[in-house]
Amino acid sequence: MEDIVVVYKERPVLKDPILVEGLPGVGNVGKLAAEHLVDQLKAVKFAELFSKYFPPQVLVNDSGTIRLVSNQLYYVQRPQSANDLLIMVGDYQGLTPDGQYELSDKTLKLAKDMGVRRIFTLGGYGLGKMIEKPRVLGAATDDDLVEEMKKFGVTFSKGEPGSGIVGASGLLLGLGNLYGMRSVCLMGETSGYFVDPKGAQAVLEVLAKILDVKIDFAELEAKAEQIDIITSKLREAEPAPEPRREDLGYIG
Amino acid sequence: MEDIVVVYKERPVLKDPILVEGLPGVGNVGKLAAEHLVDQLKAVKFAELFSKYFPPQVLVNDSGTIRLVSNQLYYVQRPQSANDLLIMVGDYQGLTPDGQYELSDKTLKLAKDMGVRRIFTLGGYGLGKMIEKPRVLGAATDDDLVEEMKKFGVTFSKGEPGSGIVGASGLLLGLGNLYGMRSVCLMGETSGYFVDPKGAQAVLEVLAKILDVKIDFAELEAKAEQIDIITSKLREAEPAPEPRREDLGYIG
Amino acid sequence: MEDIVVVYKERPVLKDPILVEGLPGVGNVGKLAAEHLVDQLKAVKFAELFSKYFPPQVLVNDSGTIRLVSNQLYYVQRPQSANDLLIMVGDYQGLTPDGQYELSDKTLKLAKDMGVRRIFTLGGYGLGKMIEKPRVLGAATDDDLVEEMKKFGVTFSKGEPGSGIVGASGLLLGLGNLYGMRSVCLMGETSGYFVDPKGAQAVLEVLAKILDVKIDFAELEAKAEQIDIITSKLREAEPAPEPRREDLGYIG
Amino acid sequence: MEDIVVVYKERPVLKDPILVEGLPGVGNVGKLAAEHLVDQLKAVKFAELFSKYFPPQVLVNDSGTIRLVSNQLYYVQRPQSANDLLIMVGDYQGLTPDGQYELSDKTLKLAKDMGVRRIFTLGGYGLGKMIEKPRVLGAATDDDLVEEMKKFGVTFSKGEPGSGIVGASGLLLGLGNLYGMRSVCLMGETSGYFVDPKGAQAVLEVLAKILDVKIDFAELEAKAEQIDIITSKLREAEPAPEPRREDLGYIG
Repeated sequence: MEDIVVVYKERPVLKDPILVEGLPGVGNVGKLAAEHLVDQLKAVKFAELFSKYFPPQVLVNDSGTIRLVSNQLYYVQRPQSANDLLIMVGDYQGLTPDGQYELSDKTLKLAKDMGVRRIFTLGGYGLGKMIEKPRVLGAATDDDLVEEMKKFGVTFSKGEPGSGIVGASGLLLGLGNLYGMRSVCLMGETSGYFVDPKGAQAVLEVLAKILDVKIDFAELEAKAEQIDIITSKLREAEPAPEPRREDLGYIG
Repeated sequence: MEDIVVVYKERPVLKDPILVEGLPGVGNVGKLAAEHLVDQLKAVKFAELFSKYFPPQVLVNDSGTIRLVSNQLYYVQRPQSANDLLIMVGDYQGLTPDGQYELSDKTLKLAKDMGVRRIFTLGGYGLGKMIEKPRVLGAATDDDLVEEMKKFGVTFSKGEPGSGIVGASGLLLGLGNLYGMRSVCLMGETSGYFVDPKGAQAVLEVLAKILDVKIDFAELEAKAEQIDIITSKLREAEPAPEPRREDLGYIG
Repeated sequence: MEDIVVVYKERPVLKDPILVEGLPGVGNVGKLAAEHLVDQLKAVKFAELFSKYFPPQVLVNDSGTIRLVSNQLYYVQRPQSANDLLIMVGDYQGLTPDGQYELSDKTLKLAKDMGVRRIFTLGGYGLGKMIEKPRVLGAATDDDLVEEMKKFGVTFSKGEPGSGIVGASGLLLGLGNLYGMRSVCLMGETSGYFVDPKGAQAVLEVLAKILDVKIDFAELEAKAEQIDIITSKLREAEPAPEPRREDLGYIG
Repeated sequence: MEDIVVVYKERPVLKDPILVEGLPGVGNVGKLAAEHLVDQLKAVKFAELFSKYFPPQVLVNDSGTIRLVSNQLYYVQRPQSANDLLIMVGDYQGLTPDGQYELSDKTLKLAKDMGVRRIFTLGGYGLGKMIEKPRVLGAATDDDLVEEMKKFGVTFSKGEPGSGIVGASGLLLGLGNLYGMRSVCLMGETSGYFVDPKGAQAVLEVLAKILDVKIDFAELEAKAEQIDIITSKLREAEPAPEPRREDLGYIG
């Protein structure tokens, strides 16, 4: 079989589209943010990527039907804006380093074919401790983008993240460079212990300003409250051990 | 060498054949069930799949001769029925995720070439505790099949299996979808601690009704009794630790 | 680079050659035996196999020069005999299952090109306990060879080795079958705890009769004595723990 | 994507160039030495190697921009000398054995295309204990080079390194042989516990004589002093456990 199989439901023609990526990773910040964006913008699924770099697994829907694990591509047409949107979400990242490279390269090829010139990748930045008001850290392919992002409240902090950015959120920037794409990674601070809707909201608030979209956060806020209740109960029950920082300081 | 080498002993022409798959997995439920089906229906072996995705190993027969580990394909011709049968059994599943994808894809190609349009995959559903009367859980490629299966006593339970279906039993459904095949996975409940003939019998009882075949279960029942004797002795000797559910809730 | 690079020093033309293989494995029995055979028969090295399936490593000779890890092929011309010999020895087996398949397949292709129709693979059979007089167990590709081997004192014992034969010593038989080669694996019993010249001698004594060659065992016996001295000292110092049988019952 | 992507900034034409390689490994001796050489000789970066054999990771510069992990090639033109220089440094070695083979083979192909006939690879030799005055051990592709190196104070010691040379520093010699290149590995003794500028300086002092270049060591000496202060504090705080020699006696 092909290493990566792309199945199209539709071949949309988009206007100077911007790609937004959010896949599983630290605190699932990127995945939560991108999925919330899909919901809020009523984005339309048009393609699925299946691959032998993913786990050999199907998921079972509530109805009893199955679906093979995949990454999915959605689009949003925005008549009032200069840029349509492409959004990539998914069940998994590649299981192996070379699989991650192949998947990101394939994504870039698809994106280039659709006219993408700019990418925003979303992820979490694991702190190893609880965080009340998460900052959004940034990294970008060039100095002009760094300056542009600072105006939107993105923090660029020397030495953070010290271990770089691992996975699709990093590769799409690094490999994208070879395709002439200008890209930004937005990382929401998170403890890294739990799925973190608060980190996702922080990232989305910044992205909403950059992309000029309206987003209702009620649902993410409700999820965050649930997590807060669980974690405060856990903290009462037993003081959490201090995890080693090096286990957490990466981005998915 | 080719990644997967198929050696044919015979090239049977079959009538609208249905593929049944049972390979090693949780409680070896699928493997036991499929092998019992081969025995009971006097199925004829016609092809072997060797692959570098299997362990580099030969098995030694009682006579001192060897055979390379493989998956095997059997057929059953049923003049009285609308559907002949193909049965896949084997020593191993692929060792790596990509190997599992390649093996399932090859199996689907072979099956499609022989006219297969429907697949039943057999597996175990690990509960992490002893079970007296195992249910048979199902998952299928479409809603009509789900409804059809319910009539045969297959249970479709929201959130089960929560972690999806891993291995050939899942991939043949998920990848089979891309080949336009309609498929069902039947999972017999099992503790997951032992080879489980009781789970295999539960699966086969359902499958026998679906396929309209007669199966004698005396041999499986005898095996189940032996396992029962062993496990009850073990339980007397020491209370089993409660395993973590997440270690077991997958299917082979 | 090619997955396996074969560098020839010479292209010998051989008379109905028999291949003997001995690579690292349990007790290094096969490797010791094959290397002793090379020394005793003054076999001539004519080809080296380098491969990315081996460790990325060079070994340093006493003179300070290096050599890349490899498998090596030697030949022996025997004017008085119906069969010349090919002997394969080496530093390593493939690191991965698929690498082992590729290396064995390549070896078989080379052997077939040189006219090989029969193979003897040499290995150890790990018992997990000290053994005074090691037997030589056998496995073969067909019943006639099993009978033939019994006449030379090879033991064929039902259920031994229960877990089959892993690595090149097994694959050359299993894959060789697909090339129409008739082959035998000879396994010397060994504790599996130490490099075991005694197991190697047992294997070679049988092989010498089969191939009708004269072999002086003084050197292997001297090595065996050294090992005996070391192990008896160790046993005095502390009683060895009983290893689990399943960790040892395989063949290299 | 290609397994290894080479991006050229420039295509320098060099005069009988000598390749010097220093990548991460034991004590980072090779990497420190090669990077110091780049700084001291004001070498010019002209090519980058990206690869799916490296981690799927970007590094974040102090300015907030990113760069994909890579190996880099620099050149030095030396009008007064018979040989220009090529220097390879980088963030990582290949993650897998086959990746290491492919990367070294690609490096050799590039080097051959540029006219390289001689290579010096730099690495550390882990002793598992602190060392005051590190020796520089050597290994080479032929006896003449061994003799030549002895004149520069390189130590060739029977049985050292006993486990050979692992990684690019070994493969460039071993595979380079197949390309007809004559090469030397220089290994600075190091404890292997810390990044070791002292081992790097020892290696560079020898290499400077061989290549007839002037190198200022003030910066490496300053780094070494910092490490000395840290390690002596650590030794006061707690006596270091004696590590097993086999864990350390390899070269990166």
